[in-house]
Formats: sequence, C-alpha cells, structure tokens
Amino acid sequence: MSLDDVVRMIEEGKVKMHEVDDLLKDSNLATRARRMYLERRLGVELKAIGSTIIDFNQVYRRNTENTIGAAQIPIGVAGPLLVRGLYANGSYYIPLATTEGALVASVNRGAKVVTENGGARSIVIKDGMARAPLFKLPSAVDSVKFIDWVRLNLSRIKEVAESGSRHLRLNEVQPFVMGNNVWLRLVFNTGDAMGMNMVTIASERVAKWIEDNYQGVRLISVSGNMCVDKKPNAVNFLMGRGKTVVSEAVISRRYLMERFGITPEDVVNVNVRKNLLGSAYAHSYGFNAHFANIITAIFIATGQDVAQVVESSMGTTWAEVNDDGDLYVSVTLPSLEVGTVGGGTGLPTQREALQMLGVQGGGDPPGSNAVKFAEIVAAAVLAGELNLLIAQHRRELGRAHEMLGRAGKQT
Amino acid sequence: MSLDDVVRMIEEGKVKMHEVDDLLKDSNLATRARRMYLERRLGVELKAIGSTIIDFNQVYRRNTENTIGAAQIPIGVAGPLLVRGLYANGSYYIPLATTEGALVASVNRGAKVVTENGGARSIVIKDGMARAPLFKLPSAVDSVKFIDWVRLNLSRIKEVAESGSRHLRLNEVQPFVMGNNVWLRLVFNTGDAMGMNMVTIASERVAKWIEDNYQGVRLISVSGNMCVDKKPNAVNFLMGRGKTVVSEAVISRRYLMERFGITPEDVVNVNVRKNLLGSAYAHSYGFNAHFANIITAIFIATGQDVAQVVESSMGTTWAEVNDDGDLYVSVTLPSLEVGTVGGGTGLPTQREALQMLGVQGGGDPPGSNAVKFAEIVAAAVLAGELNLLIAQHRRELGRAHEMLGRAGKQT
Amino acid sequence: MSLDDVVRMIEEGKVKMHEVDDLLKDSNLATRARRMYLERRLGVELKAIGSTIIDFNQVYRRNTENTIGAAQIPIGVAGPLLVRGLYANGSYYIPLATTEGALVASVNRGAKVVTENGGARSIVIKDGMARAPLFKLPSAVDSVKFIDWVRLNLSRIKEVAESGSRHLRLNEVQPFVMGNNVWLRLVFNTGDAMGMNMVTIASERVAKWIEDNYQGVRLISVSGNMCVDKKPNAVNFLMGRGKTVVSEAVISRRYLMERFGITPEDVVNVNVRKNLLGSAYAHSYGFNAHFANIITAIFIATGQDVAQVVESSMGTTWAEVNDDGDLYVSVTLPSLEVGTVGGGTGLPTQREALQMLGVQGGGDPPGSNAVKFAEIVAAAVLAGELNLLIAQHRRELGRAHEMLGRAGKQT
Amino acid sequence: MSLDDVVRMIEEGKVKMHEVDDLLKDSNLATRARRMYLERRLGVELKAIGSTIIDFNQVYRRNTENTIGAAQIPIGVAGPLLVRGLYANGSYYIPLATTEGALVASVNRGAKVVTENGGARSIVIKDGMARAPLFKLPSAVDSVKFIDWVRLNLSRIKEVAESGSRHLRLNEVQPFVMGNNVWLRLVFNTGDAMGMNMVTIASERVAKWIEDNYQGVRLISVSGNMCVDKKPNAVNFLMGRGKTVVSEAVISRRYLMERFGITPEDVVNVNVRKNLLGSAYAHSYGFNAHFANIITAIFIATGQDVAQVVESSMGTTWAEVNDDGDLYVSVTLPSLEVGTVGGGTGLPTQREALQMLGVQGGGDPPGSNAVKFAEIVAAAVLAGELNLLIAQHRRELGRAHEMLGRAGKQT
Repeated sequence: MSLDDVVRMIEEGKVKMHEVDDLLKDSNLATRARRMYLERRLGVELKAIGSTIIDFNQVYRRNTENTIGAAQIPIGVAGPLLVRGLYANGSYYIPLATTEGALVASVNRGAKVVTENGGARSIVIKDGMARAPLFKLPSAVDSVKFIDWVRLNLSRIKEVAESGSRHLRLNEVQPFVMGNNVWLRLVFNTGDAMGMNMVTIASERVAKWIEDNYQGVRLISVSGNMCVDKKPNAVNFLMGRGKTVVSEAVISRRYLMERFGITPEDVVNVNVRKNLLGSAYAHSYGFNAHFANIITAIFIATGQDVAQVVESSMGTTWAEVNDDGDLYVSVTLPSLEVGTVGGGTGLPTQREALQMLGVQGGGDPPGSNAVKFAEIVAAAVLAGELNLLIAQHRRELGRAHEMLGRAGKQT
Repeated sequence: MSLDDVVRMIEEGKVKMHEVDDLLKDSNLATRARRMYLERRLGVELKAIGSTIIDFNQVYRRNTENTIGAAQIPIGVAGPLLVRGLYANGSYYIPLATTEGALVASVNRGAKVVTENGGARSIVIKDGMARAPLFKLPSAVDSVKFIDWVRLNLSRIKEVAESGSRHLRLNEVQPFVMGNNVWLRLVFNTGDAMGMNMVTIASERVAKWIEDNYQGVRLISVSGNMCVDKKPNAVNFLMGRGKTVVSEAVISRRYLMERFGITPEDVVNVNVRKNLLGSAYAHSYGFNAHFANIITAIFIATGQDVAQVVESSMGTTWAEVNDDGDLYVSVTLPSLEVGTVGGGTGLPTQREALQMLGVQGGGDPPGSNAVKFAEIVAAAVLAGELNLLIAQHRRELGRAHEMLGRAGKQT
Repeated sequence: MSLDDVVRMIEEGKVKMHEVDDLLKDSNLATRARRMYLERRLGVELKAIGSTIIDFNQVYRRNTENTIGAAQIPIGVAGPLLVRGLYANGSYYIPLATTEGALVASVNRGAKVVTENGGARSIVIKDGMARAPLFKLPSAVDSVKFIDWVRLNLSRIKEVAESGSRHLRLNEVQPFVMGNNVWLRLVFNTGDAMGMNMVTIASERVAKWIEDNYQGVRLISVSGNMCVDKKPNAVNFLMGRGKTVVSEAVISRRYLMERFGITPEDVVNVNVRKNLLGSAYAHSYGFNAHFANIITAIFIATGQDVAQVVESSMGTTWAEVNDDGDLYVSVTLPSLEVGTVGGGTGLPTQREALQMLGVQGGGDPPGSNAVKFAEIVAAAVLAGELNLLIAQHRRELGRAHEMLGRAGKQT
Repeated sequence: MSLDDVVRMIEEGKVKMHEVDDLLKDSNLATRARRMYLERRLGVELKAIGSTIIDFNQVYRRNTENTIGAAQIPIGVAGPLLVRGLYANGSYYIPLATTEGALVASVNRGAKVVTENGGARSIVIKDGMARAPLFKLPSAVDSVKFIDWVRLNLSRIKEVAESGSRHLRLNEVQPFVMGNNVWLRLVFNTGDAMGMNMVTIASERVAKWIEDNYQGVRLISVSGNMCVDKKPNAVNFLMGRGKTVVSEAVISRRYLMERFGITPEDVVNVNVRKNLLGSAYAHSYGFNAHFANIITAIFIATGQDVAQVVESSMGTTWAEVNDDGDLYVSVTLPSLEVGTVGGGTGLPTQREALQMLGVQGGGDPPGSNAVKFAEIVAAAVLAGELNLLIAQHRRELGRAHEMLGRAGKQT
C-alpha cells in the first residue's frame, strides 16, 4: 500500500488519521501519510515540520499520537553558572529553548554575576509528587469517619499504592474535607521521574481499593484539583509539589557598583516594590520578575512536561542588604516539577540537553539526578532573576529589545 | 579562521561564547563553534541538537542568543474541529507540540465530540496587551494629584505611546495606588502581534515622558508586576490581558449516552466538584481540568511566548444541563496572549503550524488573524476539557496512560 | 394581657416569639416577654442583657428582630489624633468598642506618635457602593450581545436605578462574563449612607427592568458574589468598594531613636518581612499587621455593619525610609465601607460615638460626613499599625498581654 | 479630689487620660472623668455611652483601656435550632447582636427549616490555635539546618511552650521557608479559651529560648503573618486555625416545595452559580453567601474577638440533590476561632449570652465547651446560609429590606 493510497483512504473516510499507525505498522510512514493528507487538504506545505530526526516509532503512544512531524525551537546556552548544591557542584551550561530574544543573554549575564561572586547555593527542601482523588461520602460526619479509617489503614493503602512500581513510595496522605467531599492528597516519592503518570496510576489503584473496602464512598475523580497539576494554586505554594527548592547568592556591593553603577539598596528597592508590593496588589502566586521565562526554556529543552510551568514557576524572590552591606538574593520555588527519566526526557535533543547538565537518566542513588537537576534549575532562575532586577533598575528593558538582546528579558 | 581555531579561542578565554557571532559574522557557524566547544568541554555529543533546519542568522538577536542548535518536539494533530467564530469559521486541524502521551488523543476525541454536535462557538470579548510601569511619588496625596494629571494629559500620553509603531493604539490607562506608589496599567491594541515587546518599548517612552514632564515622580520599574506578565494573578483574571475569549458547545444527551454511556448530569457533577469546588479549595486561578495542556502544546507548535502559558491558561470551565436536557459546556479564558506575527511565529516549523490554521502573518483587517487564532485556541481548549471531564467520569485516566494514548490526558 | 400570659402563650405554642411585637404593639414589652420566656425555658438569668437604654420600638424591623435586650461592649478612647484630610482637619478622639486588652492602648500610643510628628494625611481616592446581580443567558455569544445592549441602554438603566432614592447615583456598570453567566457590577454613589440596602433595592429594580426588556435573560441572584459583600476578595481589593482611602505620615528618625530606641530601617524591616513577605506567603488580602482590630472596634462603636469588617480591613501597609532618612509609612484600604446615616448609626450610643468625631448624620455637602469619617478611620488604622510595628520590633507583644495593656496589640 | 479637678488636670495637661485610672484608683470614676473631659472638650453629650452596667474595674487592663463607657447593640434571638453534635445536642436559641435589619429574621427562618427537617449535624474536624514567629537566618542553607534542629529539639520546645500555662499543649510545629526567612507555625491546644494571647506569650517564650540556644538565628517578629490572625488567607483555609467545623442538614424536597414553592435543584443552582462560580471569579475566600453576618452577630453577643470574624467567616457552602431527591446542604468553616473563657466572655451581657447556649466558662472535660460552642455556631451559619439561598432564589432580598425584616438578609 503506497502512501498515496493511504492518503486517499483518509480522504475517502475509509480510515481515520489516528488509525494509520496500526494500518501501516510504522509510525514514521504514518507520520508522512498524515502530513501528506493535511498538505493536500489544507493547501499548505509542511516541509519544515516534516524535517525531523525523531523516530516516530519511538514516540508513538509513549509521547504523543497523530504525529505529523516536529517543532524546532532554537536552543541557546547560558553559562558557565557556578552551582554549589548537594548534588550539583561545579560549572554548568544551561540549555534554553526559546524564541524570545534577550532571554538567553539575560540569564547569561546573570550567570556571570552569580559565578563571579562565588556561585549559587541551591538546596532542595521537600520532594514529593501529589495526586488528590476526590471522594463523595453520604455526609460530613461520614467524611470524618472515612478519614479516620484511612488513617488506620495507611500501611495497607501504602502497599496498594506502591504495588505497581518499585520506584514509587507513598510518603503521606493529606486529607481535606468540604462537607461530604473528601480529597486524599497522596504524596509520593518518584525517584528520578517527575512521576505524574505513575502517581495517577497508583492513585487510581488506591481509589479502587478504597471503594472496594469502604462502604458508602464513591470516587468522583482521580484528580480533584487539590493535587494541584497545571493550575496556579495555594496548595502547592504552601505544601510543595515536586521539588521545593531554594537558590541563593551574595553579590558584593563593590561588584555591583563597579560593574553596573548600582547599589545593593537599588536592587532591594526594585524587588520589594515590584516583586512583593506589585505582586501582592495583583494577588499573584509569582512574587518574582520572570521565573517562568527561565523555567519554560529549560523545560522545553530538556523534555519536561511544559504545561507544568504553570505551578513550577510559582515562587518568591527575596533580596536584602546583608550585615556586610552586600546584596543577599534568593529564589524560592515551592513546586518545581522535574524529572530526568520518563516523559520527553528520552527524545533525541532532550536527552542531549540533559547530558549537558550531567543529569540524563536515572541517578545513583536513585532520585539524585532529579534533585541535582532541580538545584541547577533554581540556580539558573536565580541568575535570570538577578539580572532582570539589575536591568529594570537600569532601565535596560525596552532598549534591550530595540537593540535585540543586549541585556535583559522583560516581564 | 577555522571553527577549531574559534573553539580554541573560547577555551583560552580569548573570546566569549556570545561574541562568536560577531567574530564569524555568521551565526550558523557560530552555532556550530559553540556546539563544538561544549561537546569538548562537557564530553557530550550534541548531534541531535545540531540537526536543525533553523537558519541562525535569521534568529540571532531576534529570537535568541548563544545558539547551539535546536530542540525538536513531536507535533501531533487533533481534528477536524468545527469552529464557528467571527473569523474562524470551518474545520481546523490543531497542531500540538507535546511529549506527553495521550494529550493529542484526548483533544482529538474531544474535537470529534464537539464537531459531531455542531461545533464550538468562540467569541473574543476583550482585547488588549498591558504593561504597568511603577512610579514612586513623595506621598499618597501626591499620588492622587499625579493620577489626576495623567487623566488630564491622556491625549498627549497616547501620542507619545503610539509614536513608535503604527500598529499600536493605547486604549486605556488604569491607575492603581498604594500609598506613594502608583502603577499605570497601560492597555494597548497591538494588531496581530502578541505585542509585549512593543508595549514595553512604548511604556518606557511614556514613563520617560512623564518623568520629564511631571515634577517629583520617579520610575521604579517599567514593569511593576501589575501588568501582569508570566505570573498567575487576579488582575488579568478580572480585567483581561491579550484576548479574553469564550468557547462553548452543546452536546446532546443522546450522544453522550450512546457514545459514552454517561449523562449530562455526570459531566456537570465532575465539573462542579473538581473544577469549581476543588479549585476553590486550592485557591486556584484554574477552575478547569487542564487548559494548560492544550495551550502549551499549541504555543510551542506555533511560536508563541510559551512562558505566557502561566496566565494564558487561567480560566473557568462551566457546564450545566440546559433546558432541553442537553449538556451546555463553555470555557472562558480571560488572558490568552497570542499573536500571528513577531516572536517565534516566523520560524520555519512555527510558520507552517500557523499556516495549517490559516492565520500566519498579518490579518486583513489588521488584528483579525490574532483574533481568529484565539477563537481556534479556545475551541481546542474546549475540546480537550470536555474530553477530560468525560474521561474522568469514566475513570479512563490511569488506564489511558497504562495503555498509552487511548483516551484521556490526566491533570 | 400580662407578660406572663404572653410567655405562657409562647410556651404553649399559641404565639411565636417573632409575633409578640405585633401582638403587644410594643417592642419594649415584647422584648421583655421574650426574655422572660427564654429565662424560664433555658433556666438562665438575662438581667444584664435586659439592662439597656435602647428603645426597641425604634429598632424593631429597622435594625433587628426578636429582640431580648442588648450587648454592652466597653468603649475606650484613643487620641488625640491629628488628622489632615480634605474634610477631617484637626484632633480626633477615636471611640473603640472592644474587649481585647491592649488594643486601645496600642492605638493611643500610635496616635501620639503620629500626632507628635505632624499628624496623618488622609485622602479618599474612590467612592462607590457595589452590587452585582448575576444573570443567565442562553449562550456566551448571547452574553456578549446582552452586554452590548446594556451599554446602549445605560441612561435608561441609570434612571431605573436612581428612581427609588434621591441619594442614589449609579456611576458605573462593570460587566463580567463566564460562559453564559453575566454579572453586572453596579456601582453607586450613596451619599453619607454606607448604602448597601439601597443599592440592593435599586439593583433588584434594575434586574427586573432588564428581565422585562430583554428577551432570554434570567436573573439568578441579585447578588452574584462579584459585589463583593462580606467575603474577602480580589474584586474590591483591585476596583474598590465603599471608600478607597489612604492615610500616611512621616515619623522622624530622631523621634524614633529617642522615644523608642529604634530606627526607621527597623520598622521597614518588620513591615517588609512580616506584612509583605509573610502575607504574600499566606496568600492574604491583608498585607498589614492588624487593620481589622482598629476597624472592628470603630465599627462596633459607631453602628457600622460590623460583618463588613471582612473586606473593609483588607489593605496594605507600606513603609520606607524617605530621602531625609525619616520613616514614611502609609496604609491603603481599598474597600472601607462606612456611613454616618442609616444602619446602626442612629442608635443611642452609636450616635454619640459619631458625634465625638463630628460626623453624625448627613453631611454638608451630602456625602462629606462619610468621607470625613473614612479619613479619620484610615488615620486611626495608621496609628494602630505603626504602633504594632514598633511594638513587634521591640518584642513588647506577649509582655504587653502579660502586663495587661502597656503597649501593643498582637496580631 | 473631685472629678472636676481631674478633668481640669487633664485639660491643663497635668495628667494624661490613660493615667487617670491609677490616679483615682477606681476605673469607674476614671471612666466618668474621661467622659466628662471629652464632653467638654468636644461639646457633645455622652450620656448613652455612659449608661452601662459594666464595672470598669473589672475590665481595666484586662479587656480595654481609656474607657469612657459602653456601646449597646441590640440582641435578637433566632431559634429554636436543633443541633446534633458531639457536645451540642438539643435545641438552641442563638443570641445575635446586630443592627442590620432582617438578619435575625433570616437566621430564625433558616433555623425553623433546619429544625423541621431533623436538625443540623455539626462536627469539629480540627482544633488548634496558631502563632507563627518569623526568624531570619544567615542563608537558606542555614534555614534548612535550623529546621532540622527544631525537629530534633521538639520535645524541649514543647516543654518551653507549655511551661506558662497548664491549659496549653503545643501540638505541632509547621515550618515554612523563603530564602533565609523561616516561619515556625506553632499550633496549640488551648482548652476552652480561644487562646491567642496565651499562644502569643508561649510563642515569645519559645522564640527567646530558640535565640538563646541556636547561634545565628534572629527573631524578626513573634507574628510573621503566617499564623494567620485577622487577615483573610490561604494558610488557615487549608490547614485550619481555631476550630475547623462542618454543619450539614438534609431538607426534603416536599418541604421545600410546600413551604416555599422551590425545588432542591433551585437551591443548588443558586449556590453553584453565586457561591462557587461567582466567588471563584472574585477570587474570594468566602464561597458562601453571608457566613460573616451570622458569625459577627454571635461574636459580638458572646464576647469573642470580633476582629477574628475576618478569617472565622471564611468557608464554603456546598449543596447538592441527594440520592433521595432531597436537598443536602453543608457549611464548612476552616478557621472558626471561638472560646468560652477569657477575652470578653466574662463581661456581664456576654456571659449571659454564653449561658443561653449552655457553654459559659470552662467545659468538662476541658475544651468541650468551646467545641460545643463551635458546633452551635456552625449550625447557626448553616441556618442563615440556607435561608439566604432560598430567599435569593425567591427574590425576597430588596423586598425584605423595603418591608423591614420579613425574610432575608442580603449579602
């Protein structure tokens, strides 16, 4: 069967686009067939989208469906960035996939400032991927009884939860009640994987076991939006999801004065008024200037679940003048969801990007690569944030964009 | 000068990575040189990242800096999706760049449901890109006087704001006060461009003019975080940024029963408990299941500023049983920031993805392509959202992931 | 009919408690009868509750129902507090009804500090009482058409809204859409009254007129919770409700040093870390230390609707070291809902409390008393806030409570 | 020394108003003297304020300072309300101190509906008063070490915390980190007292002990606004403060139809659109109609810390049609801060109001009175909420106010 035949079959409605992979038993051919179909149907050329090194037999049903090719996003590199964490220790070059001019330059300059001032210290404070199935009970009184029962059966629930994967540990069950509605926020350790899919599967297993073993409870949804995945929220902000990580640096007064003609007080002033007061007024979860810029660019480059930028970019920049008169600056990210295995991390370019950071694949000990990665990401965020604060005080923003890429990334 | 020479110069510190473009006067060569340098330095192979069709002379300083190659993200297609908007009118195939299995399948199934029930009606309610410079005044009393002065000088400020670009219209100046701090939220019409860079430049121009013409005011930052860019927030949620867009559909009871064995009431129940009650509890800006999944995948494919997914994915899914007993479902996105010119929209694969939707480049009339694009994005979000609600009621989630890509995308 | 007879009738179920007023044609007697009934029924003595100067014939159905007596709350006074506003100009003694030790002392000390440093400057920035009826339309497309129609019929709507009271002016109609749901936030000028009841009545009138004149719209509730009354929220925080008012002062460095042994920097440090960073972390609408304490005490004393403390106490304390090295401190209250006529303002003790401030009854020009009152309230909040920041830096809190009332009020 | 003499001394600046209690050694006389002084100074009569049964020698420094008299607020009663809780079991008459017409009538009618349908079931889920001192560390790495040290020294910290009062138990220490800032949210059991003052004192003691025993830590404020007291916030909403309490009832379809001509679906519709969708849009912490109204009125009547209405009134109303076709309705209050000893609970009228509910003073077992009280308050909130939902569907609001007190309380 030629590709032309297949395209005709699609056109005639004899086969659906998503059935072509099975029909041809080759997703690379199926990808071409779909592309050809769309080119004809829509009267457009999809040559660039078709020019890819991805082997679609590798990604079919694992990473995506109905493939027609690939998007290509330029990767720039920022660094070297000196990071001193528990696992990340040394100089790193940060791969940033972005189409927004000045962002790489911004992180790059920030990395220089941080590195020349002794580097960024990063530390992961908390670690756990959460899923919160939502149950309905007959009444609130039953909700409370149910939670008690869950507490008493924790070890059994743990067993059920962990039975599907040897990388999974159920660390905590956080119950929340509203009337006859109960959320059980299940928090897992997922090793080097970001882990959302495995915790979803484990949560469904737990939910089923609960329904089978507790009279009167009914699962409404395996995700009751208290997890919280891909929506900005206070739960993750307060209790964490993925890695809760801090990165910090001290920038000397002299350096700021000589290099930029500004004082630590200037940076603190912009940070307090813009990132605290402004974001307070806006009632934001982002008490920062542009965490999202850096995190998005790293997530795209390294095969993370990019939609999780939403909550991964929540967090706070804190700056103050320390007792020596130097600038102390830190970024705190309560909910950075990253992994070095699974998801898109195994795709060709993504794999290489992770290798650049020395974190590709499973770590030794397990989980250490993901922690190391989180330490580096936080340090890169610190670099980008610091640079933007400097740039905003110096009013380089619009100028940067007019001149294309001199100094800062706006946000 | 050979690339080896250049790499050696970088190694010896004689030239910096970001200076190579100017040195070689060719960013494609510079990209190779940096890649070679990093391969040696880091002991990794960057062959996949180097395999790209991007012409780096086209993107240098416009889209990024310090390039070393590109990330490749598989694109899957969902559709046909019938959209009935003001500008988007017909069947669309939605390009989705993602590495998360089941997402494309999820939107695809949702698109089928929507299309077979008469399609999605989309409408853009508001349109305006905002930037909010933050000023410091001597006192709150001065803040009030300052705002009065701004009101009196609106036409002059409008002139200053619009002087830099013929595509720019300053529509509104929204003042906010906290003590001696004043934010002027400038809201612009930016035609078919998402427009953040041009409004930043215009805002700097306005800020400078204000400082020159009003005694005692001082600009703290051209962005005072009341804009709000790339941070989840209540300002955009309430007042809009980019396009405020709604998409809606009616799905017949019979269809739901026959096709999925569920009732409209089932879908409403999941939506109210998960998307309203759950998100209310989590104090979220996402009263939805997974807007971010669909928006991220479209943003990557079409060259949008992906970090803006943060606020673009805010919004609400509303479902109810209508008077005929059928399912009414709508998605409202207060702050969808999209463009069809500028940013990454001109890159090779991104350009093609926009062409697939018939929205590449400037529209006729100007701005119409961006509105059309917003209508389609909202319809795709509706499709993905509807499918997930069905899937969650039917408990297909974990299963979907175990079987890879049958039905639903978790969130 | 003796009171004993009435009590017996209640006991025998022949008359209901709330019917006694009509039966006896005297609410003072009815109050006694109900009290007697409850004393017998519950076996308690309600002598203190019965000892009141209130004439229940004056309050029946105007202020309350089913009366049995009154609560007595001690009133303390703080001041003199020098206020320099548009209408409030001079020294004021602030009546504070509270049972929480140290609060009056706290405001009193703060008032002294403010007064000895030139007083508080207060200014009302915005003024408008809002009510937001919620309508249902057939579809989102209809929602948009409906809003257009409302815009075109604004003058007619204004007429309808204002027809019931000569004190009422409809200033603005702010539309909000979510799918087929539309909120019309009607913002009124209500003169010296806080005005919620009159705007509710006017909003019902408007809603009825709309239903009568626009096909296909249906009122869901005259209050759709976008008003927002008695719930903390971002709408009032951003757009105001009641009075949006700022009060500010400059406290000299020397004064702080000599009087308290602290610097302006100390106060700023506590304010930034506690009121901005801490409240940001808590995702609060209160970027302050204890606005609610002062506002509650004034509201109880002066007959305001005390439940409105919820949103009236939202707001921000901003402190910085000014160019002279002195402390600049301001409080911004976006949604202070106060009145000098109507509600509880006419009750005996409440009337006197308002007279103490020179704001009892209608102002000349109308509305000026309420504005004057708002200026004073904000100044008192400033005094209480400033004192607590000083006290917290000096660690006087628990001590204050152990020693009862020396210095500060905790929160 | 006559009172006239004292007044003269105040006038001549020889004695300050707050020194008169000590001077006269009688706070009742001092109260009169201050009142006389103000009457003369301000040219007003404070006769009503002076007419009080409060013995100011009892309240001086315990409840307030600088007293001049008292405010009198009418108390109405709603009930009987049938409550079935763990401690509250029976019919209750709810004392409501308010000046807002229709509120008592509203709760009264709701109480009738609830009672005639089997009463309200109330249950306290969580119980703990929190205070969160804020510490500064040299760095984020130090923050993490510090938290580890705190964990290791928990039993010692517990000892220090509990040493000041035999009613105090430290249940939990919840650490929060932002860079070099650490909040320790100390959660206590405080028996029948609301307990804020005792936990403040205990927290200061803990903070001091920590500073004495851990090098490099510095207390910024005993309250770092993560407690959270008197500010609306997500911390209490998610983790509780005071009592987390639910109350629920089932109202039969037949009853609603016969009594009000409405269906359970009608009530659910108003609740979902107004209380969930509307409040979601407003980004509120009040997913309810008017919790604050009921709570404020009870708090004033019973001597609670009324400013705590701010967070005590946060919460959610959830309504659904149950499997029998009847109306299930519940209210969930995450942060209800109440006590039956301490604060204003010992004042004459307040004491009686608590006696009406059978909860005055310390309970047996200790703490049970406060829990019982919370159960009753939640049930009263349920009654008020249910009635308003019915009233809003029936459009009784403005009418109620026009007719004064027939049916519903607006909000």
